[in-house]
Parts: sequence; C-alpha cells; structure tokens
Amino acid sequence: MTMETNPCDKPVNKGSSIPSRVSRKTKPEDTIVNINGMKVGGSDIVVIAGPCAVESREQLFETARSVRTSGANILRGGAFKPRSSPYNFQGLGEDGLKLLSEIREETGLPIVTEVMDTRQVELVASYADMIQIGSRNMQNYPLLKEVGLCRKPILLKRGMMATIEEFLLAAEYILSQGNDQIVLCERGIRTFETSTRNTLDLSAVPMLKSRTHLPVIVDPSHGTGIRWMVPSMARAAIAVGADGLIMEVHYNPEEALCDGYQSLSLREFDQLMISLNKIAVAVGRNISKL
Amino acid sequence: MTMETNPCDKPVNKGSSIPSRVSRKTKPEDTIVNINGMKVGGSDIVVIAGPCAVESREQLFETARSVRTSGANILRGGAFKPRSSPYNFQGLGEDGLKLLSEIREETGLPIVTEVMDTRQVELVASYADMIQIGSRNMQNYPLLKEVGLCRKPILLKRGMMATIEEFLLAAEYILSQGNDQIVLCERGIRTFETSTRNTLDLSAVPMLKSRTHLPVIVDPSHGTGIRWMVPSMARAAIAVGADGLIMEVHYNPEEALCDGYQSLSLREFDQLMISLNKIAVAVGRNISKL
Amino acid sequence: MTMETNPCDKPVNKGSSIPSRVSRKTKPEDTIVNINGMKVGGSDIVVIAGPCAVESREQLFETARSVRTSGANILRGGAFKPRSSPYNFQGLGEDGLKLLSEIREETGLPIVTEVMDTRQVELVASYADMIQIGSRNMQNYPLLKEVGLCRKPILLKRGMMATIEEFLLAAEYILSQGNDQIVLCERGIRTFETSTRNTLDLSAVPMLKSRTHLPVIVDPSHGTGIRWMVPSMARAAIAVGADGLIMEVHYNPEEALCDGYQSLSLREFDQLMISLNKIAVAVGRNISKL
Amino acid sequence: MTMETNPCDKPVNKGSSIPSRVSRKTKPEDTIVNINGMKVGGSDIVVIAGPCAVESREQLFETARSVRTSGANILRGGAFKPRSSPYNFQGLGEDGLKLLSEIREETGLPIVTEVMDTRQVELVASYADMIQIGSRNMQNYPLLKEVGLCRKPILLKRGMMATIEEFLLAAEYILSQGNDQIVLCERGIRTFETSTRNTLDLSAVPMLKSRTHLPVIVDPSHGTGIRWMVPSMARAAIAVGADGLIMEVHYNPEEALCDGYQSLSLREFDQLMISLNKIAVAVGRNISKL
Repeated sequence: MTMETNPCDKPVNKGSSIPSRVSRKTKPEDTIVNINGMKVGGSDIVVIAGPCAVESREQLFETARSVRTSGANILRGGAFKPRSSPYNFQGLGEDGLKLLSEIREETGLPIVTEVMDTRQVELVASYADMIQIGSRNMQNYPLLKEVGLCRKPILLKRGMMATIEEFLLAAEYILSQGNDQIVLCERGIRTFETSTRNTLDLSAVPMLKSRTHLPVIVDPSHGTGIRWMVPSMARAAIAVGADGLIMEVHYNPEEALCDGYQSLSLREFDQLMISLNKIAVAVGRNISKL
Repeated sequence: MTMETNPCDKPVNKGSSIPSRVSRKTKPEDTIVNINGMKVGGSDIVVIAGPCAVESREQLFETARSVRTSGANILRGGAFKPRSSPYNFQGLGEDGLKLLSEIREETGLPIVTEVMDTRQVELVASYADMIQIGSRNMQNYPLLKEVGLCRKPILLKRGMMATIEEFLLAAEYILSQGNDQIVLCERGIRTFETSTRNTLDLSAVPMLKSRTHLPVIVDPSHGTGIRWMVPSMARAAIAVGADGLIMEVHYNPEEALCDGYQSLSLREFDQLMISLNKIAVAVGRNISKL
Repeated sequence: MTMETNPCDKPVNKGSSIPSRVSRKTKPEDTIVNINGMKVGGSDIVVIAGPCAVESREQLFETARSVRTSGANILRGGAFKPRSSPYNFQGLGEDGLKLLSEIREETGLPIVTEVMDTRQVELVASYADMIQIGSRNMQNYPLLKEVGLCRKPILLKRGMMATIEEFLLAAEYILSQGNDQIVLCERGIRTFETSTRNTLDLSAVPMLKSRTHLPVIVDPSHGTGIRWMVPSMARAAIAVGADGLIMEVHYNPEEALCDGYQSLSLREFDQLMISLNKIAVAVGRNISKL
Repeated sequence: MTMETNPCDKPVNKGSSIPSRVSRKTKPEDTIVNINGMKVGGSDIVVIAGPCAVESREQLFETARSVRTSGANILRGGAFKPRSSPYNFQGLGEDGLKLLSEIREETGLPIVTEVMDTRQVELVASYADMIQIGSRNMQNYPLLKEVGLCRKPILLKRGMMATIEEFLLAAEYILSQGNDQIVLCERGIRTFETSTRNTLDLSAVPMLKSRTHLPVIVDPSHGTGIRWMVPSMARAAIAVGADGLIMEVHYNPEEALCDGYQSLSLREFDQLMISLNKIAVAVGRNISKL
C-alpha cells in the first residue's frame, strides 16, 4: 500500500552519523574547557558579558568593571566585527584588542573576541584568552582549521542556518587539528518568524549535550534581538541545561555603535544575575565565581 | 546612499498592528481562564497531562489516575484525531468523549479535547470542559467562529507555520464572537532543523504575554517530538514565564497508537513534576493544586 | 569513525513512503481531470483567471468577459474568503456563488471557488464546477473527507508549510473517499525570505509529477504576492512542466478588496497570455482553447 | 482598533534600503561582466558547466571537451572544496588549478573556480578567469574585501539562508573595493522541505534584476540536489529571465568524489542544451556561442 521514494532522491542525505572526536560515544565524559583559569562544562555555570563591539576605552572599561562587580566571569567585546553592510562600523581592530588586554589586567576577567580572517588568527590569539568563531563563519573551513592549530580555547557559534549535525561537524574540523578546547554556542536560527531577530532554539542544548562531550552555552542577545526578552530567555537557557550564557551589555545601550537594541544596561544585567542564580540552584548548579 | 524598496513590494505587509480585543493595550490586566474551577493565567502554573488519543477504557483510566496522583490539574485526550494519513487511527469519536467524561467523574480532573469539524462543536462542548483547536486548524476560520459562539474555554494551539501576529489574529476570531476564555499554546514551529520534530519557540511566551492579556502555555511533547527532551524543555518553559504546560503521558508509550515516541511514561511524568515545582518556586510561582 | 543517531530520535520520521491511490506506482498513467468539459492534465495547459474575491456584479462580469477574451479557460472567484483578520472583508457568500453561476452562463467559463466549512460543501458544490481547498485548509481532514464524497473536481492547494509528502497525503484523504478528480496546486511556501509574500517552489512541480498521476498547476499570484513578478514566474511554471496556472486578475487592482497588489490588470493579463503560449510551444505543449 | 508593536521590537529591521553601488537606481543600465572574452549580462545566455571538483586529469579533460562540444561557454571545477566533514575529499588544491589552466589552453573555455581563504586569493586569481565565492562564504567579509581588490570577475553565490538584501550587501562589499565585475548566482535556499536538497528560489531572479544592474545566473544542480530535476529547473531559470546557468556535469556521475547524485552525465548535458535553446528563443534570447 506504499510507494517508495524515488531512488534519485536518496542522495539528499540530511545525515544521521557524526564523526568520532566530537561524539560522546568516543568520549563519554564531559570536556571541561579552561579559559585562563575559568572552567566551562563542569557543574558551575559561566556568564560571559560585555559590549557587542569595543568602541572606546571609556565604554569598554566602564562596562567591564560593572559586569565584573555584578558577577560576570568572562568579558566579551568585538575588535573585528562582521557587519552586513560595508559602510557600518567595522571595529577598532588591533586597538580594540589592546584595550581588551588592558582591562583584563585590571579586572582579572579572561577575554573572548572574534576572529574572521585566517591571516589574523595569530594576532587575535596573542591577545585573547578565547577566540570566537562567529555564526557567519561556522562553515569557513580554512578558519576552523587555523584555529584548530592554535592553542587557545574556541567559542564556536552555531550558524544561523546550520543543523545540529553541521554544527558538530564544524567542531570536528577544529578537533581534527588537535584542539579540543571548544565551547559550542546556540545563538538563534533563522525561521519564518519576524517578531524576533532569530528563533532561539533551546532544544539544541539538550540535543547537543546528548551527542557531544563539549560544553554548550546560549546567547539570548542575538537569539532574540530584543533587550527586554534577554532576561527571560537567559533564565530558560539555564533551566534547559546550558553550561553558560553570553550576553551583550553596554554602559549606554541607546548610543551603542552596534546591537544597542539587544544590549542590556549595566543595571539590567546586575538585576538579571540575581534571578539567574535562583534558577541555577533549582537545577542543582551554581553561577561560577571569578 | 540608499535605494528605496520597489514600491510594488510594499503590500507584502508582515503586519505590525493587531486588533483590539486580544491586545494588552485594550485590556492591560491578565485574563484568568476558568476551566471548570481550575484557573489558568494567575500566579499558579497549571499542568495538563494525558494520552495523545483516547484508545481504551483501561489506557485512559490508568493514565488519568496516575497523572492525577502525580499532580496534574487537567486531563487531555483526543477523541477526534487529525492524522497526516487517512489510514492512521482516527480516534474513538463520541465513545472517546464518553470515556473522558466518565473518568472526570472519578478523578475530578477537568478534561480538554480537540474538535476539528464545525458540525461537532456542539457535541464536543457537551462533554468537554475545554475545547482544543489544534495546530492544523489555527486558521480554520469557520471553526474559530463556531467555538467563539460556544460558552466553553478554548485551548488555541499555534499553527506550525503561524507568526505571532497570525496567532493573535486567530484568537481575535474567537474573541470577536464573544468568547474571551482562551488559552494560547506554543507547540513548536517548523524550521529547517530536522533533529527535532518541531522547533519549540520559547521566545513566543514572553512575546505573546507582552502583547496580549491571554494566558500562554507550552507543549514540549509536540515541540520536540522526543520523549527524553520533554523534561528539560518543560523546565525551560516555566523558567521563561509560561502559565502552564500540556504534555503527553501514556501508561505504555511503546504501545501507543499515536505519538508514543514523545509520550512520557507514568513514572517519568511523576519524576518530572518534582523538578517542575523547583523551577516554579525559583520564578516566584507554584504548580497549581487540584 | 561514526556515531549513530540517538535511538530516541528515530520516530521523527519525515516519511519516505506514500499511500497507494495517489501514487504513480499504483496508477502509472496521468489522470485527466474534467472540469465541466475543460480537461486538465493532458498535453494542453489550462489557465484559470479571475478576481481574488467576488466583490460585485460589475467587477466580476467585466473581469470574466475580459479574461475569457484573452484566452482564460476557467474562471476563479472567492465567495467565502479565509482572511487573517476577522475584521477584513469575508466574501459575499451565496450571493457571490450566484454571480459566478450567472457569468458562467454568459461566458461558458467553468467556475472554481473555495469552500472552508464542511457544512457548506453541498451549497458550494451546487454552484461550482470545481471546488477549491485553500492553503490554510490543506490539513483540514473533515473538509477533505467531505469533498472526497462529493462528485466535483477538487483544486487542492499546497499548505504554505506543507512538505511534498504531506501534500500527497492530503490528496489521499480525498481519494480515499472515492473522488479521484483532483488538481494539485503549488502556491508558494513560507520561508525566511521576506521580499516576496511566499517562496514559489517550482521544483515541487517535477517532484509531484514524478510521484503522482494527478495534474499539477501553479499559482504565481500568491506565490510571489507582487504583481510585476507574476508574468515571469508564470512563464517559468510552464517551462518547468506545470499543467496549468491560476492567477488573480482584477478590472481595477488598485481598488480590489483583497490581494490587489498581486492581481494583474486586464491588460497585463492579456499581454501575458501571448508570451505564455510561446513558452508552451517551446516545451511541446499548447495553451488550452475554450 | 489597533495596537502598535512593542517599541522594543523596532530594531529588528529586516531592511528595506540597500547601498548605492549595487543599486539599479545608482546605475540603471545592465552591467556586462567580461570573463576572458565571454560576456554575461547581455542578451545572450551563458552556460557554465563542469565537475563539482577536479578529481583527475582524465576526469576533468574528458568532461571539459564534452561540455565544450555540447555548447558550454565556461568551465567550472573546484580545486579547494568546502566540505561539511573534515574527512571528505578536500580538493586537489594548486594541482587542480594547474589542470584547469591546462584544459583552458586546449579548449579555449574560460575557467571559474572557488576560493575560500583570503591567503589564497592571489594564487587562485593567477590561474582562474573568474573567482567563485561559495554559498557558505557569502558573508565572509574579509574574503569579499580581498576579492574586491583583485581584478578578476567574481561569481558570488547566494548564502543558503541569505535574504535578497543580504545578498546585495555582500556584493556591495566587493563593489566597495572597486571591483564591479560581479555575477550573482541563485543556488537554492534552505527551507523546511526535505525532498530536495535546497529550494531553488527562482523568484530571486526577477527580484534581483529589478534591484541591481548586475547579471544573475542560476545553479539548478545545488538548487535541487537531484540529477533528474536539473533539466526542468534549468529551463525554468531561463524562462524566468536568468542571464545564465551553472551546472555540474561529470563524465561518470556514479563515481564522482562529490555531488555525483546531482551531476548530469555528458549525454544528459548534451540533450539538455538543445531544449535550453528553445526556451531562450521563446523569451527572445539566445544561448551564447563560444
């Protein structure tokens, strides 16, 4: 009573097997990623916070000091920015890296920042404690191989159009070069829904954690694109089992050069940290202390 | 330096305004929906549980008694089932409704069940405490109008392809007929990702609650399609601010006539209820008591 | 070197087998659907044209006479309209059906019009030569069964988020009741792209025709939502192998009560018919003559 | 009677303006791209054909000679291959470029090949007549800038999840560096439909051509992922107004190291060229002659 699929359709293989190094079958125990002393993937939950882009000494330093006081464990800030238009602010480049490095000395916060070009991996690695591969570069294979060769932890963000399997295969590219210090980050996928910037796929967290030993964190800032939605989605991310959060915080969101509409103010971030701890405790975990 | 969009594109209006009865601007305070005494939309969180379909007296009664003991507040069970294939089990029809009504007498659990045909609204309303409009019928306008005329609370599930605005407009169809006892349910949207049955859009919860006064619940069973993912997504749903959950539970999931792979066993449901209460408390709420 | 998919994921079956009546394996030869003498599914290509909604005698009659002169074979026009908002024009109802029937007498054009409610199938069937099931009702199973019991040809539009397999299964619902006079219609699917109203999936045409014996036509009006794009997409539809087209034409698109921005003017439709015939000839076919 | 959107949602700007260099408002007349003498963007339609990857001298040369005889105008072949898994064939690298250059001498066919790494742009440009930016790198901004600085024509493929506006902005990155020799390529977008590898969005062709002066071609091989569907989609692409096609052809598809299931055999390609010319004539154009 049934008809088989046309045999010519078979090659459209959406894949059901993944390679070995990233797989939990190959390595059943959780990988702990060590970011200059801060551990991700254990029982404690890490909170990464900071501005979308490093804009100025004042903006970065004020934001960094404040998120540290509120309890953030790692500082984020872009020096090289992937922007849809060539005429948008592209980041401060190496000057931004220097500012990040300076505020790390003062606050003790490890820093994570994005690299977009294979030619800049060495430069970025010389300043950063963790190197971010952004969503648009998740399948930039030369870049994945290059960061796989460097000895810094990698924050790999899910492509906005990437399946879970493609995401794991991107991590495999890094692992295949010998670097197993990888944190995966769900940051929202593109769907038909337009009321939010992306659709934050929180089911990706348990799905990824069942398939791989790598830690998984969530970015509710890009995942929603809307400031007032960040706190509730951050709480949900911890409840679902994420090992951490990365959030955009700005000392003056209205004036931010990028992503201001999805950045928390210093005060909003401070208040959020209190409620996050309650959820963490409810699932038997704690927010990390620096 | 910019080019305007082609004027002919303008009519593709994805909409930014919604009609008034459903809007929080028209009615700022939360609507409390009363399902035969059980209230949805207040500070307490309601849990609806039961089998996908009513299959037999034994299956329904054993499941109902167990979920009641575990703390469920309302019983779900389909008598008329929307199935992709005409050759799949289509439900027991009125016999299923009679069984639901019988177990309500015994357990005191209000019952919610789906209606698919305008001609059966009166019949279903004569048995059920709450009438469900399924995902595939979210834009079945004659059906929405018909249930808008009846005096029973409505559980309106989001279409798998419906935007937030279309979802609110579907509720407006019911409200426009005079029935304001509506509970909205996020149950997963269709995306490119195939590792889960749907992508549960938890950001829909805060988005809906900001726009409407109606209560919002979440269905993690259809939202994931995978039994072992239901508990973590249920916890996330409460953390994000949902007013309740609806979940499929079966006394023998392996033998279920539909959706067995996403149904919790009686024991799994019982264990889940314990952890749900912890999350509820962490966000300042409680699971309802019958 | 590979890891199997989690066994719990298996049930997420996107399906690869389809039931028998709709399948080309069961019936290898093409089905010809006869709409009051006009044949769809043979070597000639049918063109269905007319307004989105019947608005008035003048609007319908002027449009109908003009599209007939330009070479249309069948007249479309909605009497019961599925509208996102309850406050939009909902159609003229039976008065619209009467007008359609009147202009059929004059022009000889068979008429196709939509039904949304099981209770109205008999009424609509008493006027129409072909009954349309709209996109939002593709999985309205009671309605599919009801039109399966009536002896009129059915125009079944693909749901905006329906897979090819779900589309075929919807046709199977009609076939399972004994009605094999079904024309399938690709009308655009919902994707992330927002510059068009929908994404017209022309690959659905060869895919459907490889799997089923039923004729397949294309709706470039809803498929794009933009008037000036309709002609090029209509030409592409014929080039890809469609058995026909359905297009919205209005004698005064700027004043249309619905879908005016995607409706061709009488003159635009007339010009389009000339170029369509050239493409038809290039693929060895002809546009049908009334 | 309406409610405004939450003001916080506003920043989710899906964009309606595009920068100036790529815009048809800035430059109303069509840009003609000159690929070593072969012109794209005029009244003639260009056909690019060849294997997915250069695998061996025999494979490349036999395929190239045959597609040239059948009427192809430009030869494609990947030397650096973006593959989902690090363990798949990654291409022959510079050896592949040398083979491409050798067969160009013999056949006179200009060659197009992909670059993935900013560090290899100079190398690839020293061999190729046209440089391809693949779908996964459409938003690899350093790479776009780098090829913007080189004096070779660029084949820019649409990202599988890129909107029309993002696609135009990616071209703007190249234009902003002074290189206006860009051919845009629609190659299928990712949707919920799984019966094809991607959903070929043919409406992108008229939409792009209305907004930009750059030529637009179509890739029905990746757009469908299924060999037998390529011919009908290629015909539709010409009917819709594309300025050319790029197709995968292999002298032995069953043995291809990549994408064999979507590659035409030499004979299939030869037969296709005959029918393509008929469609071209029907829309008032011709297939280019070498």
